[in-house]
Amino acid sequence: MAQEKYQSAIKKLHECMAACNHCFDSCLQEDNVKMMAGCIRLDRECADICSYLEQALVRNTPFVSELAQLCAEICLSCGDECKQHDHQHCQECAQACFECAEECKKIAS
Amino acid sequence: MAQEKYQSAIKKLHECMAACNHCFDSCLQEDNVKMMAGCIRLDRECADICSYLEQALVRNTPFVSELAQLCAEICLSCGDECKQHDHQHCQECAQACFECAEECKKIAS
Amino acid sequence: MAQEKYQSAIKKLHECMAACNHCFDSCLQEDNVKMMAGCIRLDRECADICSYLEQALVRNTPFVSELAQLCAEICLSCGDECKQHDHQHCQECAQACFECAEECKKIAS
Amino acid sequence: MAQEKYQSAIKKLHECMAACNHCFDSCLQEDNVKMMAGCIRLDRECADICSYLEQALVRNTPFVSELAQLCAEICLSCGDECKQHDHQHCQECAQACFECAEECKKIAS
Repeated sequence: MAQEKYQSAIKKLHECMAACNHCFDSCLQEDNVKMMAGCIRLDRECADICSYLEQALVRNTPFVSELAQLCAEICLSCGDECKQHDHQHCQECAQACFECAEECKKIAS
Repeated sequence: MAQEKYQSAIKKLHECMAACNHCFDSCLQEDNVKMMAGCIRLDRECADICSYLEQALVRNTPFVSELAQLCAEICLSCGDECKQHDHQHCQECAQACFECAEECKKIAS
Repeated sequence: MAQEKYQSAIKKLHECMAACNHCFDSCLQEDNVKMMAGCIRLDRECADICSYLEQALVRNTPFVSELAQLCAEICLSCGDECKQHDHQHCQECAQACFECAEECKKIAS
Repeated sequence: MAQEKYQSAIKKLHECMAACNHCFDSCLQEDNVKMMAGCIRLDRECADICSYLEQALVRNTPFVSELAQLCAEICLSCGDECKQHDHQHCQECAQACFECAEECKKIAS
């Protein structure tokens, strides 16, 4: 069952999707939204691909490796952007992104 | 934080999305796929709306009530179809759908 | 064939999805991003539900009426927000939203 | 504006998404559903990634090349499966997949 095989990745994808969406929502409420524009954009990109891969894994997609490689790359980009900002939601999002990227790389190889 | 407020719903949505996708994948591998056609169709409908609502909740969507009401309805339809089949993946999917519908109704009201 | 039956709605959903995503992208590049925060949020909500419904229609979903009703409501909210801003991308987005809402209402009833 | 830059790709992605979902729906109504199981599975994979990329392009995603490369690969897989079946919806889907893969390769490079 795909859900068990990819249990660890699914957990990290879910956490990353949630962290990115929380960061997206929080950035839009910051005083200096302009400074967060890159973060808002990448949060959406990353949340969407994590959500996508989560579903694809549990439906036993034949494209695990290709999707996971792409997802890892997007997670790293989002993490690199988020870690530059001091807000707690950005720092937490960066960590979730980097952990998710690690899991994605494992299942991509 | 939306993730905490909707913790219980997010958990059920995630479980339902996973159960529906597992059922989708398993139905496609059954001997009698024709008998499972309705189940395959509704599994996809239900997995997609659960995944959608999960993301919408954690990004603090302004449309919680409307989305949750719709999701509850789709979960009930999928559960009603799945419970008619004896396969373990169908029975488990039906249960996940009904539990998810309950949570959705709570946040819809 | 669902694609022909819903041809007019699919066209408007596609245009609305594109207009919302263009507005999302453009708002993030404005000088005063803070003023556009509500618009950015609703652009994403509206783009996502339009994209969702577009796919649901062409796969012959059993939930046309419920999904279209929800989509109409989200389009109206997004249009109401966008029309308050003078940027061309906001005005064009508002128009696309209102036209899409009209089509959604037709297929919802 | 991203929508103009990628006009040709967006058109093919939309046509492919629609063809895959129509094929998905039609396969589920065939007498011999079992023979179509692989087609049903790949139709969903391909429809979902085309829909995803369509949105990503119009929101000006920074990951055009990576997403388009992946989408091309999935389109080719789906096309290869569909072209083996004589149903009109399968043959039309195969053609839409191959045309979409060509456009994706162009924007991936």
